[in-house]
Amino acid sequence: METTASDFEVKVQDIAHLMRIDSINMTNASGSGHPTSCSSMAELLSTIFFHPNGMKFNPEHPRGFENDKFVLSKGHAAPILYSAWSHAGHIPKDELLNLRKIDNDLEGHPTPRLDFIDVATGSLGQGLNAAVGMAYSMKYFEKVSNKVFCLLGDGEMAEGSNWEAMNFASYHELDNLIAIVDVNRLGQSDETSLGHSVEVYEQRFSAFGFHTFLIDGHNVAEIVEALEQMKQVQKPIAILAKTIKGKYFLDKADQQPWHGKPLKEESNPIVESIEKMIHDKDAKLTPSVPESDAMEPEHVELTVPECKYNVGDMVATRKAFGECLKLLGDQSNLVVGVDADVKNSTMLQYLKDSHPDQFIDCFIAEQNLVGVSVGAGVRGRIPFCSTFATFFTRAFDHIRMGAISQCNVKFVGSHCGVSIGADGPSQMGLEDIAMFRTVPNCIVFYPSEAVSTFHAATLAANHKGMVFIRTGRPDAKTFYKSDEEFKIGQSKVAISNDYDKITVVGAGITFTSATEAAEKLKEEGTNIRVVDLFCVKPIDKETLVKCAQETNNTILVVEDHYPEGGIFEAVCSAVASEGVKVHNLAINDVPRSGKPTELLAKYKIDCDAVVEKVKELIA
Amino acid sequence: METTASDFEVKVQDIAHLMRIDSINMTNASGSGHPTSCSSMAELLSTIFFHPNGMKFNPEHPRGFENDKFVLSKGHAAPILYSAWSHAGHIPKDELLNLRKIDNDLEGHPTPRLDFIDVATGSLGQGLNAAVGMAYSMKYFEKVSNKVFCLLGDGEMAEGSNWEAMNFASYHELDNLIAIVDVNRLGQSDETSLGHSVEVYEQRFSAFGFHTFLIDGHNVAEIVEALEQMKQVQKPIAILAKTIKGKYFLDKADQQPWHGKPLKEESNPIVESIEKMIHDKDAKLTPSVPESDAMEPEHVELTVPECKYNVGDMVATRKAFGECLKLLGDQSNLVVGVDADVKNSTMLQYLKDSHPDQFIDCFIAEQNLVGVSVGAGVRGRIPFCSTFATFFTRAFDHIRMGAISQCNVKFVGSHCGVSIGADGPSQMGLEDIAMFRTVPNCIVFYPSEAVSTFHAATLAANHKGMVFIRTGRPDAKTFYKSDEEFKIGQSKVAISNDYDKITVVGAGITFTSATEAAEKLKEEGTNIRVVDLFCVKPIDKETLVKCAQETNNTILVVEDHYPEGGIFEAVCSAVASEGVKVHNLAINDVPRSGKPTELLAKYKIDCDAVVEKVKELIA
Repeated sequence: METTASDFEVKVQDIAHLMRIDSINMTNASGSGHPTSCSSMAELLSTIFFHPNGMKFNPEHPRGFENDKFVLSKGHAAPILYSAWSHAGHIPKDELLNLRKIDNDLEGHPTPRLDFIDVATGSLGQGLNAAVGMAYSMKYFEKVSNKVFCLLGDGEMAEGSNWEAMNFASYHELDNLIAIVDVNRLGQSDETSLGHSVEVYEQRFSAFGFHTFLIDGHNVAEIVEALEQMKQVQKPIAILAKTIKGKYFLDKADQQPWHGKPLKEESNPIVESIEKMIHDKDAKLTPSVPESDAMEPEHVELTVPECKYNVGDMVATRKAFGECLKLLGDQSNLVVGVDADVKNSTMLQYLKDSHPDQFIDCFIAEQNLVGVSVGAGVRGRIPFCSTFATFFTRAFDHIRMGAISQCNVKFVGSHCGVSIGADGPSQMGLEDIAMFRTVPNCIVFYPSEAVSTFHAATLAANHKGMVFIRTGRPDAKTFYKSDEEFKIGQSKVAISNDYDKITVVGAGITFTSATEAAEKLKEEGTNIRVVDLFCVKPIDKETLVKCAQETNNTILVVEDHYPEGGIFEAVCSAVASEGVKVHNLAINDVPRSGKPTELLAKYKIDCDAVVEKVKELIA
Repeated sequence: METTASDFEVKVQDIAHLMRIDSINMTNASGSGHPTSCSSMAELLSTIFFHPNGMKFNPEHPRGFENDKFVLSKGHAAPILYSAWSHAGHIPKDELLNLRKIDNDLEGHPTPRLDFIDVATGSLGQGLNAAVGMAYSMKYFEKVSNKVFCLLGDGEMAEGSNWEAMNFASYHELDNLIAIVDVNRLGQSDETSLGHSVEVYEQRFSAFGFHTFLIDGHNVAEIVEALEQMKQVQKPIAILAKTIKGKYFLDKADQQPWHGKPLKEESNPIVESIEKMIHDKDAKLTPSVPESDAMEPEHVELTVPECKYNVGDMVATRKAFGECLKLLGDQSNLVVGVDADVKNSTMLQYLKDSHPDQFIDCFIAEQNLVGVSVGAGVRGRIPFCSTFATFFTRAFDHIRMGAISQCNVKFVGSHCGVSIGADGPSQMGLEDIAMFRTVPNCIVFYPSEAVSTFHAATLAANHKGMVFIRTGRPDAKTFYKSDEEFKIGQSKVAISNDYDKITVVGAGITFTSATEAAEKLKEEGTNIRVVDLFCVKPIDKETLVKCAQETNNTILVVEDHYPEGGIFEAVCSAVASEGVKVHNLAINDVPRSGKPTELLAKYKIDCDAVVEKVKELIA
């Protein structure tokens, strides 16, 4: 299929070559990076950026909601993306040579420190998850015409997360999504599993409900034709582009071991040879103006919904959360639920029942669940992303990258600890606090009862950034009056007497253990202080240290979590510089099936265990 | 396709019905569980267990290597699996009614506390990963004729991990693998994304390289025919079975909300109706005798290979690890490497180059990487499963389940911390220690230089159970002589003087920071104690407390990791009960790209930062 190249095609090819050369120069300047991974996608990128049927965006307002969006899933090809934004007029050419410098935002892999990046990439197989989240929001929440382009590497197609996103895209008929796969055959250390078998990719994408275009990724005319034809298609699109890694890099093309290596002294003949192919070294094209009228939604401060429970009422925190979220959803349609087929357990169901248009069904695919939430957050939603606490481990890499993406997702994990009972250890969240505590700047709430759960959910919705809320399965006694105030970073001294012998810190079910133990010990003439931790991160160091100082410099932390990284270590870390003595009760081995009360007793975190341990410590 | 049922088919159908009734009675007895999820797979299970072309196994020796293996990926259907083992003669019928009791191993989801379970399931989308690992070992390492049957639910097919396993299975031509999908249409809270569209499953499995059989999963004759025909097929097999959730449960069949609910008072008419269909309530069939001559391999204690580096030699711990692993591979062919296309970074490459037959290429699919390793471990291998430390977050759920599976996997994470440099935060392991520390009984090594890395790798190979080794990218000065001894749970006091003012604990790159700081401070007249942590879990409490007592009750921990759950909190936790004052230097925010030395300085964990902090603390 050879046609005479149009003027546009000549220019777009010239820009592709110029971006190739930029990538070589940038990685030479930084001394590291992936020029061959850039070169395989040069024509794809320049055509998508500059063809009228490609991306429509305003390069002077890259964060604008009216723009089509581009996600570079193969984040290691960052240099050529930076170059594209330079050719679009957003980055001065000289600036490109600051790639990977410590005082520059042109990092090794893209992050939203750059105003034209919406989500960080670099851990492979995550771009498409965020992209489908954005596309879903555009189509169903915002009802706007924007498109999302996501360019993926072929190596990362081995990541299952992509197939989760594809199942989601076809189920939800995301005809505003264009996935482009740069099939350059070579991974980091070896050929990919499918090599250049583009027809296998086509079968797979097709089976997952995509309309596919199989093209030569270095032939601008073929790329243009795919962009033209896709206007007629009412399905998610896949452009499967056969390419060469290090295309036009002479004897370095299509060769290992040229992954992630600057060309350095090998550059000159390659650059010269590419330059010879360029018709106009000042070639310039302008991106197409956006047609969408999408606008960034305004966030209003939500108020804490009225909690109908009275002190003493028995209600599970997962249920209180679900009820509160429904009420928050009444206040703002930006509050959306994102579920992985457990809404009747996490109680996200209440929101879906009242506001089906504020809900995303992700089915059992937790990596995509998180990626979709990140993407919806980019579009100004306030996503409450919920599953069993322990199943967030499935998406830890996406959560970790969420922090680098500066995302605005509220994670709510139910079914924490052994207190879930007979389903057994596979369903028990016993490492979720440790996981979410590692996430920089993530707020971690662990409410013990209904009123504080209402506050945690509302504080989460109003906080710009990541939040994790841990909820429980069993009923818990409502402890606070409905007018109690709660703040981020604040614990509650729930029981306090003169001459308390020790401070016991609990949260969730172990707060119940601690308060019951306090009653029992009081009957025996021993007073103890009880702290309801509530906010695990940032932790209330001041309250903890003060309590310790008033109670023999001794704290006992009781938790329904493994001992590592949970609330015990959070407390240790907070008071470590003060020389406070901290002891703990926690789940010290893989638990088994049983009734909740039996398990709490067996693993020694119930009332009796607290009483026994307190007696031992004050003896 | 209606044929006269053979005697065998009548019996297998009877047993299916009996297992259905068992599942109803078991879940009624326990008060929780998933009878409808059991019922949809009753005919599939009874036929696979008892047909001569199905599983061949010795029910009296369930762990036997000669057996074909069965993995129930939809672990919530545990009751019917237990019932099948009862009908095979391995579990007394009465015992079944102890389902989910705290003193019984018939847990809510299967775990290897039962001798007929090889890997725990219950977190969906994990069975097939372990199954392909077993199948790979059987075909390539052991060269035996065993088969692996893996039964999956349709809801869990949304999990990307399954598609990772399928890509792996077809690439490696695992014609000893039979995946059976119980397409019963209904998930927990809603219909699955594909409902009863079995033809879409067929397209997808087919595109992923499987030979497919599309059958009615309640028609024994069709199941038998698939088992018969599959003998001719030289590819991975998929039996895609259209089924009904709660089949034969009268008005409860194919209905929400009957997921995960015992039938209780609704049972009688259902049980009676099923009983009426049974020809012989004492129907009995015997499993087919295994034909494989596979045997459990004998493990011999490996010796620490000679480390060629001398004190002062500069070598990265990732390189030392790679060299040691190659030498361990020389000693035993049970030592195998499992890679996700980063072998030239983790240095698993050395093992592959020397022993290509002790290596598994998993491509970029970390969940499958871990699942394959778990499966290979079941077959007696000693899998060293390696990628960048931070990419293990991708597989945290598989790692977590690995602990419940009592697996024997050695995880080796390279490229930890900001010290990797310009690639930026997406590539930096900054939460890996926190993650692996939560895993019950997992040993965590963090060697600082070459000699201790050799010991860590060898101790890992000889330890039966899970181990994590954290290795680094930059060169590190060899500190120990080659005859130094190392033990699990032991730290090294690397620098010690009389009248040390403080103990500084480091590991990896921060051990270098600490030793350099000690020299610098000594020149200024200040002595400090330096501890090389080496083993993070179990931690050497004795050494830490002793050092603290001798150095003003004060410890400073320096780590290339986020402050949560890393070596600071490990140390805090160890000394918390003693009232020791512990301070720290760690990575307190999402880092950026830069040179390693620049990053160590910027995030204040280099020598200068240690010097400054020590001066502040002793002032």
